[in-house]
Amino acid sequence: MTEHRELVSIRAARPEDGPPILAMLTDLASFEGATHAPRLDAAALERDVFGPTPTLNIVIAEQASGSQFRQMRGFVSYFTNYSSWEGNAGIHICDLWVSRERRGEGVGSALLRHILSQNEGKRIDVFVARSNDARIFYERLGFKEQTEWCLYRIEAHE
Amino acid sequence: MTEHRELVSIRAARPEDGPPILAMLTDLASFEGATHAPRLDAAALERDVFGPTPTLNIVIAEQASGSQFRQMRGFVSYFTNYSSWEGNAGIHICDLWVSRERRGEGVGSALLRHILSQNEGKRIDVFVARSNDARIFYERLGFKEQTEWCLYRIEAHE
Repeated sequence: MTEHRELVSIRAARPEDGPPILAMLTDLASFEGATHAPRLDAAALERDVFGPTPTLNIVIAEQASGSQFRQMRGFVSYFTNYSSWEGNAGIHICDLWVSRERRGEGVGSALLRHILSQNEGKRIDVFVARSNDARIFYERLGFKEQTEWCLYRIEAHE
Repeated sequence: MTEHRELVSIRAARPEDGPPILAMLTDLASFEGATHAPRLDAAALERDVFGPTPTLNIVIAEQASGSQFRQMRGFVSYFTNYSSWEGNAGIHICDLWVSRERRGEGVGSALLRHILSQNEGKRIDVFVARSNDARIFYERLGFKEQTEWCLYRIEAHE
């Protein structure tokens, strides 16, 4: 049996990627047992990702199958944070998702390695749910759990 | 004995506040047992706080004593983050510090209440060291610990 491993290509999201990104976000929310759909909708994408002053960046992974048609397989979103300790901006990874049927093909690693290479020398943070096996994935890529810090939050709309 | 409680006033930091802000940051780093001084220096302040496209915001608290001379008593710094769950930008509090000799006078609460009122309806995050009594301070102001999320990090310069 020959393995047909497809090449993954990575690029910045464009406005026409909106619908598959939103579909993937909905799938991610359901995976995390979310109580409502993510509020990042088409209008928020247009304003916060594709507007003149983006507050969220999205990078997508796509694969070409037999035909020339390229299909989105996953995405990663991130924003710029800041550390006075470092005296510099860093990166916080907001979401990372790979189509459930394309797991184990290196799509997630390709997305993260892209972010790491684009932000060399910067501090990179991500929150991972305590119960999520993705913790192992991040550890393999060099992330370390910061057990000395507790996240405190006031939720929106409270 | 009459209590002379001084009025706290809160305002956005200006470039001339740089030296006392940097002195307070150094004190904060020493309080946290930091292994090096914070790398946020005068050049980084000018670029990241007081430049044309700030990535960090700083708000200061000052008190007037008997004379007209106002003295900085504390500061809070924060940056804008993003939640696809909320489909909106939020706030992450980076540092909060009150002069050691002015604790218990409501300076920290005044700073945080200012941030809360300026960002009503937004999600507000802060990392607090596990061993830091400030956890009680944040809880009193309505913050809740998010024990289901683990912070993973790749340090800068690694």
